[in-house]
Amino acid sequence: MTTATENKKVVLVVGAGDATGGAIAKRFAQEGLVACVTRRSADKLQPLVEAIQQSGGEAHGFACDARKEEEVIALIEQIESEIGPIEALVFNIGANVPCSILEETARKYFKIWEMACFSGFLNAREVAKRMVTRKRGTILFTGATAGLRGAAGFAAFAGAKHGIRALAQSMARELGPLNIHVAHVVVDGAIDTDFIRNSFPEKYALKDEDGILNPEHIADNYWHLHSQPRDAWTFELDLRPWNERW
Amino acid sequence: MTTATENKKVVLVVGAGDATGGAIAKRFAQEGLVACVTRRSADKLQPLVEAIQQSGGEAHGFACDARKEEEVIALIEQIESEIGPIEALVFNIGANVPCSILEETARKYFKIWEMACFSGFLNAREVAKRMVTRKRGTILFTGATAGLRGAAGFAAFAGAKHGIRALAQSMARELGPLNIHVAHVVVDGAIDTDFIRNSFPEKYALKDEDGILNPEHIADNYWHLHSQPRDAWTFELDLRPWNERW
Amino acid sequence: MTTATENKKVVLVVGAGDATGGAIAKRFAQEGLVACVTRRSADKLQPLVEAIQQSGGEAHGFACDARKEEEVIALIEQIESEIGPIEALVFNIGANVPCSILEETARKYFKIWEMACFSGFLNAREVAKRMVTRKRGTILFTGATAGLRGAAGFAAFAGAKHGIRALAQSMARELGPLNIHVAHVVVDGAIDTDFIRNSFPEKYALKDEDGILNPEHIADNYWHLHSQPRDAWTFELDLRPWNERW
Amino acid sequence: MTTATENKKVVLVVGAGDATGGAIAKRFAQEGLVACVTRRSADKLQPLVEAIQQSGGEAHGFACDARKEEEVIALIEQIESEIGPIEALVFNIGANVPCSILEETARKYFKIWEMACFSGFLNAREVAKRMVTRKRGTILFTGATAGLRGAAGFAAFAGAKHGIRALAQSMARELGPLNIHVAHVVVDGAIDTDFIRNSFPEKYALKDEDGILNPEHIADNYWHLHSQPRDAWTFELDLRPWNERW
Repeated sequence: MTTATENKKVVLVVGAGDATGGAIAKRFAQEGLVACVTRRSADKLQPLVEAIQQSGGEAHGFACDARKEEEVIALIEQIESEIGPIEALVFNIGANVPCSILEETARKYFKIWEMACFSGFLNAREVAKRMVTRKRGTILFTGATAGLRGAAGFAAFAGAKHGIRALAQSMARELGPLNIHVAHVVVDGAIDTDFIRNSFPEKYALKDEDGILNPEHIADNYWHLHSQPRDAWTFELDLRPWNERW
Repeated sequence: MTTATENKKVVLVVGAGDATGGAIAKRFAQEGLVACVTRRSADKLQPLVEAIQQSGGEAHGFACDARKEEEVIALIEQIESEIGPIEALVFNIGANVPCSILEETARKYFKIWEMACFSGFLNAREVAKRMVTRKRGTILFTGATAGLRGAAGFAAFAGAKHGIRALAQSMARELGPLNIHVAHVVVDGAIDTDFIRNSFPEKYALKDEDGILNPEHIADNYWHLHSQPRDAWTFELDLRPWNERW
Repeated sequence: MTTATENKKVVLVVGAGDATGGAIAKRFAQEGLVACVTRRSADKLQPLVEAIQQSGGEAHGFACDARKEEEVIALIEQIESEIGPIEALVFNIGANVPCSILEETARKYFKIWEMACFSGFLNAREVAKRMVTRKRGTILFTGATAGLRGAAGFAAFAGAKHGIRALAQSMARELGPLNIHVAHVVVDGAIDTDFIRNSFPEKYALKDEDGILNPEHIADNYWHLHSQPRDAWTFELDLRPWNERW
Repeated sequence: MTTATENKKVVLVVGAGDATGGAIAKRFAQEGLVACVTRRSADKLQPLVEAIQQSGGEAHGFACDARKEEEVIALIEQIESEIGPIEALVFNIGANVPCSILEETARKYFKIWEMACFSGFLNAREVAKRMVTRKRGTILFTGATAGLRGAAGFAAFAGAKHGIRALAQSMARELGPLNIHVAHVVVDGAIDTDFIRNSFPEKYALKDEDGILNPEHIADNYWHLHSQPRDAWTFELDLRPWNERW
């Protein structure tokens, strides 16, 4: 890697393992940002990195356990010093694991929060520190309906998603006046992913009638948020298929 | 006017007297839709209609009291038969008039609701009837923070804005599965209008630092909503300046 | 009727025709307040008035079209001058009439709002004017889930209920600091009424397992709200049967 | 301690160190429940236990680190086997520590969540397991405005309080149909505690005009929730002083 140059701008996508994170990285790369994508094991990022490069974009994959403060700090330091300033952070780690409250283990309850909320705090705080010195930047969180509503059997996931939404709101209120745009996207519905195809085939069948979310269309909305002039910033928008019940 | 042709698509902007409605009409016209704009007296619409035409767009101004059912029905019938099918409806009438509850008159409480809520119902219902037969269309409502929160001294305005949001939600849930996209935009902050310039000069002074909303940027978001593919529709988004307290 | 005396305190229940309003009137009468109960035709109030009197309470029934400003003003003036100061107002008129937005008439949309929202404004404003001069009083609104959520097919009812909740919030924020306690009760579920028994027999069958709300238990909560010391006032609480889905 | 007897019913107050938890324990003891109160160090509970005993109630203090699963499991097992079935659980641990997101440490962010959310999960799950076998019980969570809104400078606290509210909602929806009443109380305002007296004297001065919450009045509302018949359960209510801005 070369030394970071002023004119390169980075989008850091944390949790780029799934279709959504990948599509967002591609979209921002297509607009000229350098895509830095992370997940726990870097090898699985290779296809994404190559796809971006083949489209003429610049991309780098990093293994990073987003729950480990030292790893997060080191990664962001590395990106900022070797690649360029982080212009946009997209936090996209989920953990949608249902469980009866009666059978939920402390270990799982903690892990879901650690993945879907705590690591969001670590990454967002660390990036925000850099952004405030530059007085510019965008921080986007992928949320879910569970961030607004605690459904039966989803105490852990809803807790984590409520937590990440609280983080987003608190950061938006603190950092907005410092010219950092913080926003939260409520994804309400199944996304066109391997997970849905394999685990919820009857849901996946709705794809033919646009009944599940296309990751590229989600990505368009993230780009839209990032592009908003600062006199008209959105904090929160929801995304759902036309025929989803809500 | 000529007979409506299949390939012309209309955006109907109800309440196009202010900067926001005007900017939305211009934006949709720029994308190829025929802008039909209404307000109570048509003459004030002439500058807007001419501006659109001079930019190469098609526009028509109509005098219509949006609170009168017969006028609304007649206008929509006229547009549909003479100009083209209404592809998008934007309801943009506000009535932000504060008053202590102790001094609020029945007449004013009613009028604020009639303007900012009832006329929204009339126009949206009448347009929706056409859209469902075509199984396509977008209906967008301009909302406000008062639609989410009843502040002291704003019982009437908050009541109307809560009502229009309830209408939008109910329509979104009923008409979404019929392929009609209904959305609600929460505008939270002062807009760059004559009203703000004249009545709140200290607010208007924030314009230099992007502290009030630019109508064109609001319009970009309306267009974004209209452009969303149906697998990823937004019901609600908020818009506020970066330095607005909320 | 005799002249109003200092030591008599009145609860005014507007919309006392159904089981809920009746139970609230009884509960407050049992605690020593004079129950003044209204509905459009007074004769239907007679059983309620007699039941309160037979239990040793004082009660008066009044015919009043709560949507007519002059009638509301006259009634409140009469009660205050002839019976006693209104210590608590309970606004309890609903209008839960579903309808597809495509078939909703302007007349019905208006009437639902007029009954369930506008009349609440008229009564609450008029009573509030008296309460602020005494710097004491409670104003309670019966709300519904439709005040929080616009369901498909309920645009008119949701609009009215959103409006009444906005009114309650706005009044609570303005009048709280004047020592007037304003609160909103979200009733979420079927109530044990003739209407439910006759129109929704399968719902009514849940009564055996406490699956529908007992009006007396609703009334206990209204009394609880009225009894709260002013250092710990509730603005909003919800009430639903244990086995209700939400 | 003697063996648990059928007719003894226990209220377990987790986080009984402050005025609120203490007042709730007293209130429930006064109604005949055995108060089991916990905090990290038992000695500080002695005055509370003695006060309840001197009023003729039964009370037991326990040292328990509510964040440690084994300790929580052991305590609840001990109470159930030696004292009596837990009829009501009150989770009352807060951690209202503001901090700029830019300076928030991972350790503190975690600790605030661990105290104010994770320990709530541990205690509530463990008690719920017993309650569902008996098909009866009440679980009450002390919440805060931060559970509804992420304010600037409160990312950690808001995250924890959002999480506990999500837990409460999810449990209410899952356990309600099993006859367990789960509720969440939003305390919005300063409480009459040593903490407020010492740290916010200007807030405390409002006590003379009832401008801060009296813990006994909070306790009355917890008892009210516990007493509600199951056809009319409240999930959430807010409590704030009459002159609090909100």
